[in-house]
Amino acid sequence: MLKGVSPLISPELLKALMEMGHSDEIVFADGNFPAASHAQRLIRADGHGVPELLEAVLKLFPLDQYVDKPVALMQVTPGDPTETPIWGVYGDIIHKQAGLASPFEEVERFAFYERAKKAYAIVATGEGALYANLILKKGVIPAG
Amino acid sequence: MLKGVSPLISPELLKALMEMGHSDEIVFADGNFPAASHAQRLIRADGHGVPELLEAVLKLFPLDQYVDKPVALMQVTPGDPTETPIWGVYGDIIHKQAGLASPFEEVERFAFYERAKKAYAIVATGEGALYANLILKKGVIPAG
Amino acid sequence: MLKGVSPLISPELLKALMEMGHSDEIVFADGNFPAASHAQRLIRADGHGVPELLEAVLKLFPLDQYVDKPVALMQVTPGDPTETPIWGVYGDIIHKQAGLASPFEEVERFAFYERAKKAYAIVATGEGALYANLILKKGVIPAG
Amino acid sequence: MLKGVSPLISPELLKALMEMGHSDEIVFADGNFPAASHAQRLIRADGHGVPELLEAVLKLFPLDQYVDKPVALMQVTPGDPTETPIWGVYGDIIHKQAGLASPFEEVERFAFYERAKKAYAIVATGEGALYANLILKKGVIPAG
Amino acid sequence: MLKGVSPLISPELLKALMEMGHSDEIVFADGNFPAASHAQRLIRADGHGVPELLEAVLKLFPLDQYVDKPVALMQVTPGDPTETPIWGVYGDIIHKQAGLASPFEEVERFAFYERAKKAYAIVATGEGALYANLILKKGVIPAG
Amino acid sequence: MLKGVSPLISPELLKALMEMGHSDEIVFADGNFPAASHAQRLIRADGHGVPELLEAVLKLFPLDQYVDKPVALMQVTPGDPTETPIWGVYGDIIHKQAGLASPFEEVERFAFYERAKKAYAIVATGEGALYANLILKKGVIPAG
Amino acid sequence: MLKGVSPLISPELLKALMEMGHSDEIVFADGNFPAASHAQRLIRADGHGVPELLEAVLKLFPLDQYVDKPVALMQVTPGDPTETPIWGVYGDIIHKQAGLASPFEEVERFAFYERAKKAYAIVATGEGALYANLILKKGVIPAG
Amino acid sequence: MLKGVSPLISPELLKALMEMGHSDEIVFADGNFPAASHAQRLIRADGHGVPELLEAVLKLFPLDQYVDKPVALMQVTPGDPTETPIWGVYGDIIHKQAGLASPFEEVERFAFYERAKKAYAIVATGEGALYANLILKKGVIPAG
Amino acid sequence: MLKGVSPLISPELLKALMEMGHSDEIVFADGNFPAASHAQRLIRADGHGVPELLEAVLKLFPLDQYVDKPVALMQVTPGDPTETPIWGVYGDIIHKQAGLASPFEEVERFAFYERAKKAYAIVATGEGALYANLILKKGVIPAG
Amino acid sequence: MLKGVSPLISPELLKALMEMGHSDEIVFADGNFPAASHAQRLIRADGHGVPELLEAVLKLFPLDQYVDKPVALMQVTPGDPTETPIWGVYGDIIHKQAGLASPFEEVERFAFYERAKKAYAIVATGEGALYANLILKKGVIPAG
Repeated sequence: MLKGVSPLISPELLKALMEMGHSDEIVFADGNFPAASHAQRLIRADGHGVPELLEAVLKLFPLDQYVDKPVALMQVTPGDPTETPIWGVYGDIIHKQAGLASPFEEVERFAFYERAKKAYAIVATGEGALYANLILKKGVIPAG
Repeated sequence: MLKGVSPLISPELLKALMEMGHSDEIVFADGNFPAASHAQRLIRADGHGVPELLEAVLKLFPLDQYVDKPVALMQVTPGDPTETPIWGVYGDIIHKQAGLASPFEEVERFAFYERAKKAYAIVATGEGALYANLILKKGVIPAG
Repeated sequence: MLKGVSPLISPELLKALMEMGHSDEIVFADGNFPAASHAQRLIRADGHGVPELLEAVLKLFPLDQYVDKPVALMQVTPGDPTETPIWGVYGDIIHKQAGLASPFEEVERFAFYERAKKAYAIVATGEGALYANLILKKGVIPAG
Repeated sequence: MLKGVSPLISPELLKALMEMGHSDEIVFADGNFPAASHAQRLIRADGHGVPELLEAVLKLFPLDQYVDKPVALMQVTPGDPTETPIWGVYGDIIHKQAGLASPFEEVERFAFYERAKKAYAIVATGEGALYANLILKKGVIPAG
Repeated sequence: MLKGVSPLISPELLKALMEMGHSDEIVFADGNFPAASHAQRLIRADGHGVPELLEAVLKLFPLDQYVDKPVALMQVTPGDPTETPIWGVYGDIIHKQAGLASPFEEVERFAFYERAKKAYAIVATGEGALYANLILKKGVIPAG
Repeated sequence: MLKGVSPLISPELLKALMEMGHSDEIVFADGNFPAASHAQRLIRADGHGVPELLEAVLKLFPLDQYVDKPVALMQVTPGDPTETPIWGVYGDIIHKQAGLASPFEEVERFAFYERAKKAYAIVATGEGALYANLILKKGVIPAG
Repeated sequence: MLKGVSPLISPELLKALMEMGHSDEIVFADGNFPAASHAQRLIRADGHGVPELLEAVLKLFPLDQYVDKPVALMQVTPGDPTETPIWGVYGDIIHKQAGLASPFEEVERFAFYERAKKAYAIVATGEGALYANLILKKGVIPAG
Repeated sequence: MLKGVSPLISPELLKALMEMGHSDEIVFADGNFPAASHAQRLIRADGHGVPELLEAVLKLFPLDQYVDKPVALMQVTPGDPTETPIWGVYGDIIHKQAGLASPFEEVERFAFYERAKKAYAIVATGEGALYANLILKKGVIPAG
Repeated sequence: MLKGVSPLISPELLKALMEMGHSDEIVFADGNFPAASHAQRLIRADGHGVPELLEAVLKLFPLDQYVDKPVALMQVTPGDPTETPIWGVYGDIIHKQAGLASPFEEVERFAFYERAKKAYAIVATGEGALYANLILKKGVIPAG
Repeated sequence: MLKGVSPLISPELLKALMEMGHSDEIVFADGNFPAASHAQRLIRADGHGVPELLEAVLKLFPLDQYVDKPVALMQVTPGDPTETPIWGVYGDIIHKQAGLASPFEEVERFAFYERAKKAYAIVATGEGALYANLILKKGVIPAG
């Protein structure tokens, strides 16, 4: 434990977040995502939802200021009636913490898998909602 | 040993089954399959048949609900008179446990090898029946 | 994820629980315990409290039937006025799930450290309560 | 698989049996034995009983001809009423295969644990019987 | 050492032979073959000739029954006057042990190198004869 | 880089600081300390002085509240006329950040070496001052 | 520490500089560069600026005498108004130490990433200036 | 293979022989010796007898000139009627190659085991003779 | 050290030379060659010139008898006035030891780099001469 | 290669010298010393004598100023008539470079072995002189 760091964040996750640079991506995978088979670096966060992790992580780094859509969602498969109310939750957190009104790019399921394979890390959460996967692109941190 | 988990399942197999996500595949290879040369993760189950392992595994996860044929069999080589009564045994178990009447896709021998190479794990069983190899595609587990 | 296994339990923790045998011990360490420096096998469970993990684990194995006190607590340092209401929570869970009325042995702080070093694994939780560390001794599972 | 080798025996077990020399010991641990925490080399044989493994192994090497009791059992804890009918099964197999009428040394539980720690390997079986652990001491194989 | 296994066969070779499945290949390389640079798994058998190893190995598994030529030889380079009397020795051993009269496929030197790279293992022997390299394709072992 | 974390702190150091628990120790070694030969975990911070690292680290965790002297210095060897003005710098930083007026225990040189061997990590700084080594004992962080 | 070597240079960096040969490249990455995801060998130099590292390194090896532009900079993205005064600082150091007046090649951002992936090492500095990344190509050292 | 080096000697054995210095010991273990459980470095020489290896090795280094008995044998267990004609073979080889008439020290069986554990390497031969184990102590090689 | 082996040759180099087979290549790289970045196996020989290593190595194996030019040199870059008197030294050694009058193939600099990447090993010497890199192709050693 | 560093010094040796701190020891072992069996870190310098290495190393660090005898030699075994003229060579180099007139402590052979085991590194040279082993204790480097 450290002062000022959320207890949701493991030492390994904190290290990965710090090692990432401008334009590196991290995936927050829901409980059904094939994380272990797609990750270059797999970080477990069993039993946690994505919203609370998102909130903790956005306190630690900004989203990429050089692209229009620094956050990617997995598109609902055409024909699948599943609703995705959790996207609204994500939008509120990002708006509040990063000031972005419309940060989302929707990525087709198998393209999302390919992009996840190239990410710096995949965080395997226990998020129960469907289509709840999220990719964040890290931004530039100005010199203190 | 754990309460409620079949003693046929090794700790390593249990961990692999849990790490798999939606659409990851696992191969149950018969005793003659070239498992060690094709596996990304090799899990030994020497001396056990495939039916009892199949039965134990289907208690732990559902088959992929997003595809028509979530189970693959190795096609009998054209000209080979071998019979495959064990396929009926597999069908009964899957029907009973997963409620699927017609889950099987038949895959040509060398295409089956290629697909096995991409699977999350290969379980090397001691199954003595021929053409007894099986690929399962894991499904989505709804939030409890 | 697996059917019937709590999402709080990571694949690595599940594997360790299964590998343990009669009389092996596992430590559930609170957020301030020096877990990384004392563990033979370190398993992270950041952000989770001990009570919910205890409840999940006791569904998977029995406590040691061959000793009187199969659970150890870290004794409050003499002179420290800290209260330990969480011990009552532990007692209720163990009573409900394992039927034991008085399972606790209190172990002096530095003796507890030595015992933790010999345990099969230490689970580093995010439990915020003080003196909330717990050692469980696994029991015999009768043949199914 | 190999011609003439029991399918119960994994490649790793076969290699260990061959690497052992005169006076090296191997433990066949029942399903409740703390095998993972005591083994220098851990070999899994989940789901198998000890008698069938014993029968297969005694075809591959002789017991130590230089000691009186080349086989050790774990003594029943004083006061424990458990019966050990499986010891008779072991005796019959050893008598039939190795021609020894009285091969058993009984070793107190915690002394057995210490001896298991020094063994060349521990085979973690799924044997459900209690007090079913067995240590074999390998003998000299005369030049063919 | 094990009863019934040739002392020429090392524990590592025995394990590899057992791990191989139907259609996996193993190379027995003569003393001049670039074995270390081409092997996925390198197994040393310094000081031994190929014929005695071949004889020992054919007692442990059958050759592939699904192809016409389950054994490959390295073709003599056009223009090279070297004789290969050892091929006759190989033919006699294979005929005696596997009942095959004409098992050999001749493979051009550099194609042989490429095929050796894909084999499950290369056994680096001390065979002094030239063009004495051999590839065996493992067959199906019927259930006992 | 992360928002709110000093750029002096490497990802590896941040991870180690977070993994440490109550009573774990970390050594900040000056440029002449035999850090590589004494460290269980060696973390390089070449080119940095100890005061700026101390200041950054004390923002991340409290010193041990359960001992009187949570900070150790290496005692000047008797007879050595070296002055240690840097100790005053350390005292000021600790007073300002941790509110402790008299936190230092002086440890004889070779006893300091032994204690450093048991520390969770040694940070090899480039501090040019002599007798500038420092050991910090981490305290308890109250639940947020 | 060694006599005559800048304390800014870690043992690992010194070793890498020495292992490099004619035409090998090393990247000095600013604090926002995605160093960990692009490096074949990652060397941390947290908290240090690039100019002081450049000055120390140019004392240890010459730039490539066989190419016109032995130093590469990351081009400012078209449309980005950021100024790069640090390039002048780099120019002065290189002019003073290596006698080159015009050593810089500007490389487009994504091409720079690709080239960094092939470099012998990436040094992750804490440089706060933007577009401050630098690639050096090592030259020939004449026999002493 | 190398010119002038016996094909019995594997690359790994040759490297070990060269790495050894004055007073280092190497064990040539017969086929029944518990080599894998006692060796710091295990080198396989399956299928070879000790005499031919001894002959090859004595061409590569001298025996220790600083002790009276640079070769150790395992003493026959009191009461065991086994004869050891192979000791005469060893004596002849050592006399011919090293000019020593009486080089042997006899070491009690369990003391021999302890000494073997400290040796630089154990060579696991296939020697079929009993009590055929041998320890060689390497001597000083004068500058060429 | 071993009798009859040049003290210039390290145990690791001797092992590599022995592991190589017919047609495997080894690079002797001068002090400026980018050896560490191109080698599959890097063997250090700091402080030694290539001629003395060449002389020692040619005592251990023959050059490839199946190709016309079993030795490759790095071509002088067009326009570079550097002389290469060391090539004459190499020629004399090879003529004396291998009886070849005209063994050299000249390879363009970047093609030489590509070929070095595929070699079995690169020996990083301290040779001070320019364009002094050498590739040897190992020949067939006839059975003793 | 680096400007100003002797080509006798390998990258690995340079790194070790830099990692060492005040009071760490390094052994320069002659060609007959059992270096590989005694070293915590083994660094090869085959084919080089100790005097030239000593000269190069003393340019990089001072000897320990806190002890009377910062250099240890291996005492000639009583009764051995060997002369040690190389000690005079060592004395001259140390006097010239470090200004010490009488730096040597003589250590009995087996005590020397024990001390070598605790050294930070052993450099295995090809020094042909007998009793030519040397231990250096590193001193304090004042801040530049």
